[in-house]
Amino acid sequence: MTCELCDRTGGELLWQGERCRVIYVEEPGYPGFCRVVWESHVKEMTDLSDDDRMHFMEVVFAVEAVLREHLDPEKINLACLGNAVPHLHWHVIPRYADDPHFPQPIWGKSQRTAAASRVHPDTAMLAGEIAAALD
Amino acid sequence: MTCELCDRTGGELLWQGERCRVIYVEEPGYPGFCRVVWESHVKEMTDLSDDDRMHFMEVVFAVEAVLREHLDPEKINLACLGNAVPHLHWHVIPRYADDPHFPQPIWGKSQRTAAASRVHPDTAMLAGEIAAALD
Repeated sequence: MTCELCDRTGGELLWQGERCRVIYVEEPGYPGFCRVVWESHVKEMTDLSDDDRMHFMEVVFAVEAVLREHLDPEKINLACLGNAVPHLHWHVIPRYADDPHFPQPIWGKSQRTAAASRVHPDTAMLAGEIAAALD
Repeated sequence: MTCELCDRTGGELLWQGERCRVIYVEEPGYPGFCRVVWESHVKEMTDLSDDDRMHFMEVVFAVEAVLREHLDPEKINLACLGNAVPHLHWHVIPRYADDPHFPQPIWGKSQRTAAASRVHPDTAMLAGEIAAALD
């Protein structure tokens, strides 16, 4: 079996823990989009132990808090899907009223082109803030 | 301000707790689709206290466990979006390889018509199983 989240980091590494990692997703129109990826190949949240599951969520919410504090989004979207890549990962997506799909989910119908003024944040800053929250 | 999740239950009530409720979403093609709705009007997960946030997630994962046990989905999808209705609610969606959007998110491009063989489960059974897990 090959799995892209077993074989590769999946994006720029912002934080590496023993059980999961945080990566930056350079998606056009979506500044601040991060993923939290479980290290081992597990399919569902309820396949994890209680302790692992709550740790994973604490990391997701730490990332949410950093993104809210530094990027001031209109809304945070959280999703754990994995239909195509059944290796647990959370999408943590800052949403803005002028982003390409708002108020639709980012997987929905495009509503507009990305605003040129929305640029990707300093990922070293994000990495530092996530480390400060988690380490 | 009017909010549809403040004003209405939002679907068939499966479980009512002090802090959140579980409702059944009668979405064609998506048997077992549930939502977990926070009782008070709060926008983001990181606006909740640590205890409230972890309780909310425990309810989400209890619903996931019941749906997996009784409906045997290919995958569970979890999402907390709220761009249109910024009142905290989680989607807990059993996914099947023959569902209308698989492997896309349910908000993506339709892939096929719903299989007639996929019927909604007995919601009284689901309600009983969720109560057994949580009460």
